[in-house]
Amino acid sequence: MIRKAILFAGCALWMLVTATVSAQQKIVVFQSDFGLKDGAVSAMKGVASTVSTDLKLYDITHEIPAYNIWEAAYRLEQTVPYWPTGTVFVSVVDPGVGTERKSVVLKTNTGQFIVTPDNGTLTLVAASLGIAEVREIDETVNRRKDSQQSYTFHGRDVYAYTAARLAAGAITYEQVGPRLPNEVVRIPYQAAVLEGHIIKGSIAVLDVQYGNLWTNIRRDLFQQLSPQYGDVVHLTVLHKGMLVYKGDAPYSQTFGAVAKGKPLSYLNSLLDLSFALNQASFAAVYHIGSGPDWSVEVGITHKK
Amino acid sequence: MIRKAILFAGCALWMLVTATVSAQQKIVVFQSDFGLKDGAVSAMKGVASTVSTDLKLYDITHEIPAYNIWEAAYRLEQTVPYWPTGTVFVSVVDPGVGTERKSVVLKTNTGQFIVTPDNGTLTLVAASLGIAEVREIDETVNRRKDSQQSYTFHGRDVYAYTAARLAAGAITYEQVGPRLPNEVVRIPYQAAVLEGHIIKGSIAVLDVQYGNLWTNIRRDLFQQLSPQYGDVVHLTVLHKGMLVYKGDAPYSQTFGAVAKGKPLSYLNSLLDLSFALNQASFAAVYHIGSGPDWSVEVGITHKK
Amino acid sequence: MIRKAILFAGCALWMLVTATVSAQQKIVVFQSDFGLKDGAVSAMKGVASTVSTDLKLYDITHEIPAYNIWEAAYRLEQTVPYWPTGTVFVSVVDPGVGTERKSVVLKTNTGQFIVTPDNGTLTLVAASLGIAEVREIDETVNRRKDSQQSYTFHGRDVYAYTAARLAAGAITYEQVGPRLPNEVVRIPYQAAVLEGHIIKGSIAVLDVQYGNLWTNIRRDLFQQLSPQYGDVVHLTVLHKGMLVYKGDAPYSQTFGAVAKGKPLSYLNSLLDLSFALNQASFAAVYHIGSGPDWSVEVGITHKK
Repeated sequence: MIRKAILFAGCALWMLVTATVSAQQKIVVFQSDFGLKDGAVSAMKGVASTVSTDLKLYDITHEIPAYNIWEAAYRLEQTVPYWPTGTVFVSVVDPGVGTERKSVVLKTNTGQFIVTPDNGTLTLVAASLGIAEVREIDETVNRRKDSQQSYTFHGRDVYAYTAARLAAGAITYEQVGPRLPNEVVRIPYQAAVLEGHIIKGSIAVLDVQYGNLWTNIRRDLFQQLSPQYGDVVHLTVLHKGMLVYKGDAPYSQTFGAVAKGKPLSYLNSLLDLSFALNQASFAAVYHIGSGPDWSVEVGITHKK
Repeated sequence: MIRKAILFAGCALWMLVTATVSAQQKIVVFQSDFGLKDGAVSAMKGVASTVSTDLKLYDITHEIPAYNIWEAAYRLEQTVPYWPTGTVFVSVVDPGVGTERKSVVLKTNTGQFIVTPDNGTLTLVAASLGIAEVREIDETVNRRKDSQQSYTFHGRDVYAYTAARLAAGAITYEQVGPRLPNEVVRIPYQAAVLEGHIIKGSIAVLDVQYGNLWTNIRRDLFQQLSPQYGDVVHLTVLHKGMLVYKGDAPYSQTFGAVAKGKPLSYLNSLLDLSFALNQASFAAVYHIGSGPDWSVEVGITHKK
Repeated sequence: MIRKAILFAGCALWMLVTATVSAQQKIVVFQSDFGLKDGAVSAMKGVASTVSTDLKLYDITHEIPAYNIWEAAYRLEQTVPYWPTGTVFVSVVDPGVGTERKSVVLKTNTGQFIVTPDNGTLTLVAASLGIAEVREIDETVNRRKDSQQSYTFHGRDVYAYTAARLAAGAITYEQVGPRLPNEVVRIPYQAAVLEGHIIKGSIAVLDVQYGNLWTNIRRDLFQQLSPQYGDVVHLTVLHKGMLVYKGDAPYSQTFGAVAKGKPLSYLNSLLDLSFALNQASFAAVYHIGSGPDWSVEVGITHKK
């Protein structure tokens, strides 16, 4: 009897505990341009663990090129939607550390939180996931104890600390600080648009491991050209308006559809139009980069 | 009294909870050739966390050289046995993505699960740990919701998702999909054999950090040459059958047993016969690689 | 009634469980010079997870330059204080593996534990956090089962295993092994001292991502020169006593206070005096390194 009662209590309690955990998620995901060679990332995780040892601490990447806010923005857009509602992200790419920029926590319309300097890092997430609310971190209360004298490491003393407290339920979102207008600093770039039979857009990012070009042209827009596998996609790449590359890239279902080293076009895992060389680096071979300065024009010729 | 009862219930329950956790493990370990510079690995972990926030998510490495199935096979063999029974691994090195290869979950005889394309990745684990069962992933059910249009990112939409559900107990192993014969695709390589007084084998992998040569010659086989510390081991290295290196490497208990830059032989942490230069890279100095194309012949001269 | 009782038991138990967790922390943090390309780190974490699947396993870095004990010492000092009391660290940078050096567990005065070969790795933590106690690992009992034949991978078979057992509460600190005198092996270096109007010290480490020079001159000592933002700091860098660099670096609150590429001085996130070029690498441009061989002399001229 006692055993049964304990088992029953165990089950009920287990559900209770699980429910509590689910509500808070207790997950913090970090991104920065710190690299993994020194102890900066570990110090941030240490501060978060000191807030609560129950947290689960993960990463997007810490290999954002130094000061590259655009790439920080892109990595957030690439990953945030795949994490559970309630997940708290910390992004620290901050060339203006010590200068004027607000420290904020954005809540997306999909229910994730992003703790970051408001310096353009939120450009793409704000556009694709939408802004539910923005709050400025009140650093007089949301700051690691005894950290007032250290002015350079907001990532550890303010961002990691505040993110951990939010994820652990030690503070509510409202307690982050005062609400701001639903706006963030945005980096200008060529949005994807259809003009006649040509789609204009940008090279949002390189698939760094393989050197593929990932554009910001979504599947839905590309569909308006009625592409079929085997069609020839005409690609023009411009850097600050100057021609860098012009060539044809068959629209392909697999990389193996073209010879080794040859170009192809495909939809990447985010369903964006992308360009690759089979088993080679498009970016390296043709000296192509990514970001707001790199735009593309895309046309199509249907196979007969 | 009440306090005692609660304490007792607490202890009982704690054991119960621990027992439950042990059964499921709730651990997923990831490996890929994606690198850590973009958001691909994080998206996989996000999908897994969305399945269950209780999971613990770890990594083998994401620095497998692009498309190098052999090295993926080796890293699995090097690490799987050290993780608990019930751990679920995800390995995504997949040059044939989009082409014909099955997506499978292997259960080893030691009770770990490996979720991977069956493209040779399982070669070494199948040989050393043995195949308990192989099942093909039924992608009609084991696939992230709304992911049908994304054909390229099996790692996230099928593998991470299925692994997380298996680790969390959301599906049983049987629910992965239909059982296949106990066979996997295997990459041919020179197995370790004794021929007369010579052992033939392969350079299974480089100890990348230090450039040491790790062969597939196990301690038990090497013992048949009756090695003693101080004996001279004669090493011949061949690439596709062509001589690349020939030299003597004293069998040593410590790297410091030979002068800086000089060769030695030793048993590595996996108890495989290995070759190193003291504080230098054998691979870099003598241009030696690893994998199925690199074979070795090993003899011995006993010290007097 | 029953529901209320269960809820009450739930709350009480939850506090109980939380209290237990807090006491043990169950956190292990790893550091090594293994890199992340092979499976060594994963094997260590697998062994730890096999001890207890409840552990949370994190990292400082595994990119310590091969055999660089000084940098291992520095990374520990940089991160240990930010982790909770009771956290267990494993540091494996071990050029003398197999030779004479003790395997120890240091308990700091701040309550963290560090499992490491006693080869100088503890130099800086011992100086800054203080030694509460040192114990030598009794490898006859604190060693992964069946690992006696593998003599090279202490990191996995002894250190990770012992750290996990300590963090999980499977052994007490006393059960690590016999107590040693409160001393550790220390690497000699120029401590920070004021001599007249000059402060002498060392370049403790490079801020690897940006190439900034981080000295071991703490804020409190630097304050004795009464620095004000805008003052000119005179920096001399010596390698083994030979002049390498001499120049002026304004004391600045933000990197943007000087032109791109120009030197400045600032307090880093650890409140140590540091030197940087705005958006360039001081170390790369002027060929400056770090460690016990690199010393500095610092003077000041106050602005009018």
